[in-house]
Amino acid sequence: MNIIENPKRDCWAELLKRPTQTVNDIEKTVNEIFDDINRNGDVAVSKYTHIFDGVQLTRFTASEEEINQATQAVSPELKKAIQQAKSNIEKFHTAQKTTKIEIETQEGVTCWQEKRAIQKIGLYIPGGTAPLFSTVLMLAIPAQIAGCKDIVLCTPPNKEGKIANEILYAAQLCGVSKVIKIGGIQAIAGLTFGTETIPKVYKIYGPGNQFVTVAKQIATKYGVAIDMPAGPSELLVMADVTANAEYVASDLLSQAEHGADSQVLLVSTSKPLITAVEKEVEKQLKVLPRQAMAKKAIENSKLILVKNDAEALDLINEYAPEHFIICTENEAFYCNGIVNAGSVFVGNFTPESAGDYASGTNHTLPTNGFSKAYSGVNLDSFMKSMTFQKITKKGLLNIGKTIEIMAEAEGLHAHKNAVSIRLKDL
Amino acid sequence: MNIIENPKRDCWAELLKRPTQTVNDIEKTVNEIFDDINRNGDVAVSKYTHIFDGVQLTRFTASEEEINQATQAVSPELKKAIQQAKSNIEKFHTAQKTTKIEIETQEGVTCWQEKRAIQKIGLYIPGGTAPLFSTVLMLAIPAQIAGCKDIVLCTPPNKEGKIANEILYAAQLCGVSKVIKIGGIQAIAGLTFGTETIPKVYKIYGPGNQFVTVAKQIATKYGVAIDMPAGPSELLVMADVTANAEYVASDLLSQAEHGADSQVLLVSTSKPLITAVEKEVEKQLKVLPRQAMAKKAIENSKLILVKNDAEALDLINEYAPEHFIICTENEAFYCNGIVNAGSVFVGNFTPESAGDYASGTNHTLPTNGFSKAYSGVNLDSFMKSMTFQKITKKGLLNIGKTIEIMAEAEGLHAHKNAVSIRLKDL
Repeated sequence: MNIIENPKRDCWAELLKRPTQTVNDIEKTVNEIFDDINRNGDVAVSKYTHIFDGVQLTRFTASEEEINQATQAVSPELKKAIQQAKSNIEKFHTAQKTTKIEIETQEGVTCWQEKRAIQKIGLYIPGGTAPLFSTVLMLAIPAQIAGCKDIVLCTPPNKEGKIANEILYAAQLCGVSKVIKIGGIQAIAGLTFGTETIPKVYKIYGPGNQFVTVAKQIATKYGVAIDMPAGPSELLVMADVTANAEYVASDLLSQAEHGADSQVLLVSTSKPLITAVEKEVEKQLKVLPRQAMAKKAIENSKLILVKNDAEALDLINEYAPEHFIICTENEAFYCNGIVNAGSVFVGNFTPESAGDYASGTNHTLPTNGFSKAYSGVNLDSFMKSMTFQKITKKGLLNIGKTIEIMAEAEGLHAHKNAVSIRLKDL
Repeated sequence: MNIIENPKRDCWAELLKRPTQTVNDIEKTVNEIFDDINRNGDVAVSKYTHIFDGVQLTRFTASEEEINQATQAVSPELKKAIQQAKSNIEKFHTAQKTTKIEIETQEGVTCWQEKRAIQKIGLYIPGGTAPLFSTVLMLAIPAQIAGCKDIVLCTPPNKEGKIANEILYAAQLCGVSKVIKIGGIQAIAGLTFGTETIPKVYKIYGPGNQFVTVAKQIATKYGVAIDMPAGPSELLVMADVTANAEYVASDLLSQAEHGADSQVLLVSTSKPLITAVEKEVEKQLKVLPRQAMAKKAIENSKLILVKNDAEALDLINEYAPEHFIICTENEAFYCNGIVNAGSVFVGNFTPESAGDYASGTNHTLPTNGFSKAYSGVNLDSFMKSMTFQKITKKGLLNIGKTIEIMAEAEGLHAHKNAVSIRLKDL
């Protein structure tokens, strides 16, 4: 672990730099696969599933039978846990519902804003060694609350052409319309153009490896919206002398086990705390099953000693962490002052893994400093706001002249005329 | 004008197709300019301003003196109109403020959502023959209400190195921090990377030609957010027998004058209304100063006769218009049923130009069918939502087991351990 004491402000940018990702090499491959699938639909999708997932499927859509079998196979204990998490996620995202906003800006000029669900959406769930069913909950639950009509889930099949029971169970529990056993670039391309099997959608959500990330970026070129760009997961813990080094170490490690490219940072005003955390990390690391993976990330991690809370806050806002844990006496200072973060965990008994699974907040969050401009996934991610206006005769008399003058000044005479032609009748 | 009577549903996709834009040819140029500006900063910016705008500037930033002079030069009448528009836009966007959402999902598990302003933003205002100062209002007013700190405006200079008085006046009136006389690809690249003169920002807003549009798309590759992809402006009017053909024609023409690639559609349940509108358009077109431009768009316009309101609504939602005017007896049917539109104008005395300037709604809206997934610019476009959670000891006892079970099922043992290590102390 790298300990950095009191770094100067003009070194912050370098210190907080994320490892750069090379998108350009991947882009060519992604573009080629997009073109192929745009032209050849399912035939091309099938080809790439064979190449990348090593399986030849005759049927891509998960059948009702498969879903029923999966539901049977998930243990009652895990089902109960998933249902508990679902209940909390549902409560928090339902609380995010907004009502129509209506206002008369001038007499006779009424403006209002209403939200509508995005009708057709695609959820991407990565495959790999562990079945990340929790992401199904995080995307499908708010989509269902928003009222999205077609909720299509794509996830790669394993070499036997199967997907995890837990994913199928979570999908049916949360109202997913269709589960398709297609992953990677071919899934994103399919959702972008539509194929015989994959419906074309308006917006694509969910994490993925760098191929999926670039594919989502390319999808936006074809008019499909995405939740946000993605990067490796990251955690920043702010801890002072009141923090518990054992707990802090466990949080840093829970982030580190995601992979060698995970970002782990500790910022502290206390040197003894930093030393204690360093020791604890070494101790806990030894007994972790994913030790090798976590070790790499921990080696690249940074423990930063700062002078005071004000400096810490500036540095944290400059970094804009995806996950931000606050273990300090002065919690309110950080809660009020943080402007750039995905999700914030407050106090010694709020581990990051609570938000990953079950507290109720969403775990699909902006990484790579994107929290400077992007929200994490929330109810509004599945809706768009539309505006309306209705003007009465009296209203047009009140506002007409203003429109005429401004339109004329912009040289748009037909814009002016649309008002004048009405005013002449009033 | 093309009149289409009762088109079959399987022809809708073809009928509602927008003219395709060729992004790929432009992309190479944009990428080259981005690379150059990333490496060479202001030197490169200066070079491209010379090439594209035909002017060599020694100072890019508008001085206080220039702003004062511009303020003097704008007529009192136009100032009053701009202030009136500002007041309405301010009222409607202030009404969109949301408060903290807080909920206890389980005893001891509190989750909340708060919004924060995006700290550094860039507004792009196109140049050209007409000074589009109204867009300054539409972007800078909500940015100021949101609380954005650095609001940078970029707009191309004319051959004399000047920008329109109206733009400078509107910028200072609405709290823009810095006005920079740089346009096109070089402005977007500058805002993406930062140069000696142009600050690096987190999100870029505003319309532009196809070069600016592609540049904004490329900016997202470098982690900068954008308001939305842009395309040519468009209007769909739904009018029945109760509509006023003269008014409808004036609205269609106000859209058509934007340019030859503007999209103009009329959907109606009444053949006589369609015929009457067609005649009126020809009549009004003759006296328009921008006749040549409007004529081209009008030639490509479509007047579509449909059987009934239900069919009309389906067709309109399939098209997803940027601007949607409702001139029908049954207004509520369309207001409630519309799911895909940017901004909606209700009734015979609500011309689209009202929303372009002064009703209070925003005129930066999703074109090209993007309203299926994107909102128009609104207060939330300048903020991001962050989530927080705080769990008490009691709370962790309630929720801990659920997290442990789920983390274990996903094979993430350090995630589980972050809970177990705390539970052992409780």
